[in-house]
Amino acid sequence: MAPFTTLAEFREVLAAAPGSDQFARDQAEARNERLTKPLRALGRLDDLAIWMAGWQRTPKPTVDRPQIAIFAGNHGVTTARAVSAYPAEVTEQMVLNFQAGGAAINQIARSVGARLTVHAIDLHRPTADFTQGPAMTEEECVSALQIGWKAVEDGTDLFVAGEMGIGNTTAAAAIATALFGGSPCDWVGRGTGVDESGLLRKVEAVEAGLAVNPGARTNALEALRCLGGREIAAMAGSIARARVDSIPVILDGFICTAAAAVLARAVPGALDHVQAGHQSAEAAHRNMLLRLELDPLLTLGMRLGEGSGAAVAISVVRAAVACQSGMASFDEAGVTG
Amino acid sequence: MAPFTTLAEFREVLAAAPGSDQFARDQAEARNERLTKPLRALGRLDDLAIWMAGWQRTPKPTVDRPQIAIFAGNHGVTTARAVSAYPAEVTEQMVLNFQAGGAAINQIARSVGARLTVHAIDLHRPTADFTQGPAMTEEECVSALQIGWKAVEDGTDLFVAGEMGIGNTTAAAAIATALFGGSPCDWVGRGTGVDESGLLRKVEAVEAGLAVNPGARTNALEALRCLGGREIAAMAGSIARARVDSIPVILDGFICTAAAAVLARAVPGALDHVQAGHQSAEAAHRNMLLRLELDPLLTLGMRLGEGSGAAVAISVVRAAVACQSGMASFDEAGVTG
Repeated sequence: MAPFTTLAEFREVLAAAPGSDQFARDQAEARNERLTKPLRALGRLDDLAIWMAGWQRTPKPTVDRPQIAIFAGNHGVTTARAVSAYPAEVTEQMVLNFQAGGAAINQIARSVGARLTVHAIDLHRPTADFTQGPAMTEEECVSALQIGWKAVEDGTDLFVAGEMGIGNTTAAAAIATALFGGSPCDWVGRGTGVDESGLLRKVEAVEAGLAVNPGARTNALEALRCLGGREIAAMAGSIARARVDSIPVILDGFICTAAAAVLARAVPGALDHVQAGHQSAEAAHRNMLLRLELDPLLTLGMRLGEGSGAAVAISVVRAAVACQSGMASFDEAGVTG
Repeated sequence: MAPFTTLAEFREVLAAAPGSDQFARDQAEARNERLTKPLRALGRLDDLAIWMAGWQRTPKPTVDRPQIAIFAGNHGVTTARAVSAYPAEVTEQMVLNFQAGGAAINQIARSVGARLTVHAIDLHRPTADFTQGPAMTEEECVSALQIGWKAVEDGTDLFVAGEMGIGNTTAAAAIATALFGGSPCDWVGRGTGVDESGLLRKVEAVEAGLAVNPGARTNALEALRCLGGREIAAMAGSIARARVDSIPVILDGFICTAAAAVLARAVPGALDHVQAGHQSAEAAHRNMLLRLELDPLLTLGMRLGEGSGAAVAISVVRAAVACQSGMASFDEAGVTG
């Protein structure tokens, strides 16, 4: 059972989460300085290793049981406003593809040795069109948060949340506009590849959504409920669960980061356990990462979602902890330090 | 047996290497367009997959047998000019560390599933001090090229050359100055961590090396012979072997790229089979990659050598080919394209 039944309780649970372990970080740093390499010669890998040590509460962190959870949901705005290059049916078709092992994330998960779990949420019951009112009731939003919360498996030592939801770059852009301000144009992009008129429809949808849901601008969890979707709320729930259980998380692209941004705006420090895995080709993603002070591990021009960018970054974090936990010290190896 | 016994023969063998397979690239591109993702939504991964297809001559490339070869050598200039923060003995101590499995590259190789081979070359016979004359005779340089040539193992489907050689950022900076022009200051950096006076000694050593070896500025293989070292020549030999055998290569940092640059300047197209794996924190590396028109896959602030940056990038290339070769098409998955 998830330990919350309302959005207010969800926020309280998240706010009560313990922080990273300073003692383990200090131990990890001391160990790192004795390893057979010039000081900090692994750059970002050294930083990652010490950060992982703090969350896993050990100077020798691991990436032995990484989990990628994909959440799928459908959006009323997709059909009502024609905001995607693909029809809404593709969400379900791609879920079947995930289950059959044929999608990009299946191949990447296998290549990095990660477990993949797939969570389709009420695909035949899209959220309400957010240009007409809130996308979800509180009950619907909490239910999606709970699905995400429960999706994080015991023993997971690194977590990635991915998504599939035709139309969800529009929902994510609406959330970003509500959380960070500015104009919808600043946050709307081409997603999976809409043309100019599609881009205009996305901007108009976000404008309408903000106008009809004024509470979204002042309350981050209201932004999630009124503008988000079930898969976005589930991602937020899973990232929050990882925070409460001190499981490090790698963020994927634009939509995943919008879900995480809700948590950051709801509770300061809620993303201390998070690294940005990949900076998406979706232009506004870079801006969102800057606002969250997250520096992406990779910039490979990907724009797929599914957790695919973060999944590639799992191997970077694994290399980092492999060095930290497996290297010999100068003394052990008889190397002049 | 390597098919060359002189530098001129080495150049001829390299110049006769076949190119990438256009037909396989076209097939790979056609396949890629049918996979269940928006067109080119994997960005650089899609490019990598098609590039791999061209070299492996198949629309479904693999990274099943990656090899990392580390070459180690010692440099006369290291002791003569005190250009490193570490004494020359550390080269051999680190070779023992590689053999015992205690170095960073051992951990990274294991974490990415790559074979690691270690090739220590005449560590007790450093090259001559290049500030006094050529670092190597032609026979010595050819011998090191042959060691690299023979180090590439049968069946390798992706190759990384790494190095260990105290003082070798000075040799690499001298090669870069000879090949690309400019002042030694443009190409000299802190390496494993020298102080201001060490930096000055490096610049002076490069100036002296270029003055005493005038042929290095006009002939790339002479630059290698006169200013390089055994591990640098061996890296060049291995990268050339991979080119002749159509094995794709990921370059590591500053020293590895200097070795590769010799080939590029000796024979146009010699690096068509190469991707830059990681942009080093050694400042001049970025400049060298720009000159070679290579765009690094990763920028993680690493500055270790040993093949470590390229080794991390193996997982990126593996993810790329996993998607290309394993994904379902729109038709196969019943997804609306």
